Amino acid sequence: MRTRWDAPLAPGEVALVGAGPGAPELLTLAAVRLLADCDAVVYDALVPKEVLALAAPNAARIFAGKRGGRPSTAQEDITRTLIALARANKRVVRLKGGDPLLFARGGEELRALAEAGVRVRVVPGITAASAAAAALGVPLTDRRVNASLAFITAREAADPSKVDWKALVRAFPVIAAYMASAALPGLAARLRRAGMPADTPVALARAVGWEEETHATGTLAEAEAGKLWLPAPLVALIGDVVRLRTPWRRD
Amino acid sequence: MRTRWDAPLAPGEVALVGAGPGAPELLTLAAVRLLADCDAVVYDALVPKEVLALAAPNAARIFAGKRGGRPSTAQEDITRTLIALARANKRVVRLKGGDPLLFARGGEELRALAEAGVRVRVVPGITAASAAAAALGVPLTDRRVNASLAFITAREAADPSKVDWKALVRAFPVIAAYMASAALPGLAARLRRAGMPADTPVALARAVGWEEETHATGTLAEAEAGKLWLPAPLVALIGDVVRLRTPWRRD
Repeated sequence: MRTRWDAPLAPGEVALVGAGPGAPELLTLAAVRLLADCDAVVYDALVPKEVLALAAPNAARIFAGKRGGRPSTAQEDITRTLIALARANKRVVRLKGGDPLLFARGGEELRALAEAGVRVRVVPGITAASAAAAALGVPLTDRRVNASLAFITAREAADPSKVDWKALVRAFPVIAAYMASAALPGLAARLRRAGMPADTPVALARAVGWEEETHATGTLAEAEAGKLWLPAPLVALIGDVVRLRTPWRRD
Repeated sequence: MRTRWDAPLAPGEVALVGAGPGAPELLTLAAVRLLADCDAVVYDALVPKEVLALAAPNAARIFAGKRGGRPSTAQEDITRTLIALARANKRVVRLKGGDPLLFARGGEELRALAEAGVRVRVVPGITAASAAAAALGVPLTDRRVNASLAFITAREAADPSKVDWKALVRAFPVIAAYMASAALPGLAARLRRAGMPADTPVALARAVGWEEETHATGTLAEAEAGKLWLPAPLVALIGDVVRLRTPWRRD
């Protein structure tokens, strides 16, 4: 039976909803419909005002942001808030940047809510790599280059790392690195030491869908040296697909 | 400058638009707006009637489907059609299932259109792995299991394979396999021979967002033996994140 993502929320139900990269027009219809008819929105730092403006006028707006360098709300507090709202019979939208189940701890919230007996659903969102690829005009896969694609957070390059970097470089000619800003030089160093050529092309997309959106391209060696860099939030696409980049006109 | 995904199409412009997995409510607002105000829609086999119904009433609807086992339109024909429509000053939506730049040849179309001097844009869509994960209640990443995620098409398991399977299994505890139906037993055999444990859990999601939607779970050994299988279109999530599965109530 087909999953219905946009059925009206029941009292006491929580929807974990992917908000995509930030541009309101990349919200799904399901996200828009659930926002328009809910009692509370619990949102992250990477959810912009234009998206919150789509929530029902009387809905409570509760910030549950976590962002590098800023005061953060512990994951346990967020889960407690969601459970409390559900037990008060509120219809709750939990808005998370990107896709809730990809580098976003949505799985932990889903599990905690279900264990607490809260009715819950998950609505997928456009993940940052898809938005970055589209904005840059860089294919994530191309028949001539790669039959596979790796998603990783750049923070994994820090010591100690759980990742087998040599195996990663051997298996994956193309990598999409999330949360790539501060960690980008370290990630580039790891990849180069693991055998990725220094001239491997790298494309960066910062804040896709926000006014601060910026793009840059260069090489792995330049990223390692800090000469190719942009501020957070940042996605890096690394590999020969970047040579196929086709920037498209915006005006 | 921020990418505007939903600006009205100019005459002679082509938008490569991700339609997501099929459920109309997983379309983006940008996709809905572009569909509602275009002259032609060129669509794939995995785009359902309910989505096409959102196109402007007078828009030409042109099928450009490619699907295993059915008569297919060569990629070159599709590109020629798009260029011809653009040169006739049509405002064209090229609708592709999932995300246009992930296992969908959108990059080839983007490049061919740009080289022909056609104005083009790319609108990302919900990729099949995100929709499958949400429908199944399986996180694609979880801090306790994986810091990285591999995307692959199951067809890569056929001989000769470009993939270094031992490296892949060493580097990636979690794999999202696209186009996994006919190729699933072969993929499972490859992964097991490359060192992935036979009891690795596997979750299958068929036709997410369609009436035929079906889920199944089992082990890598069962997938290899053909005991865990579903018809196309199929996504397989493989790895210990499947143990964290939290099915959510639908009614």
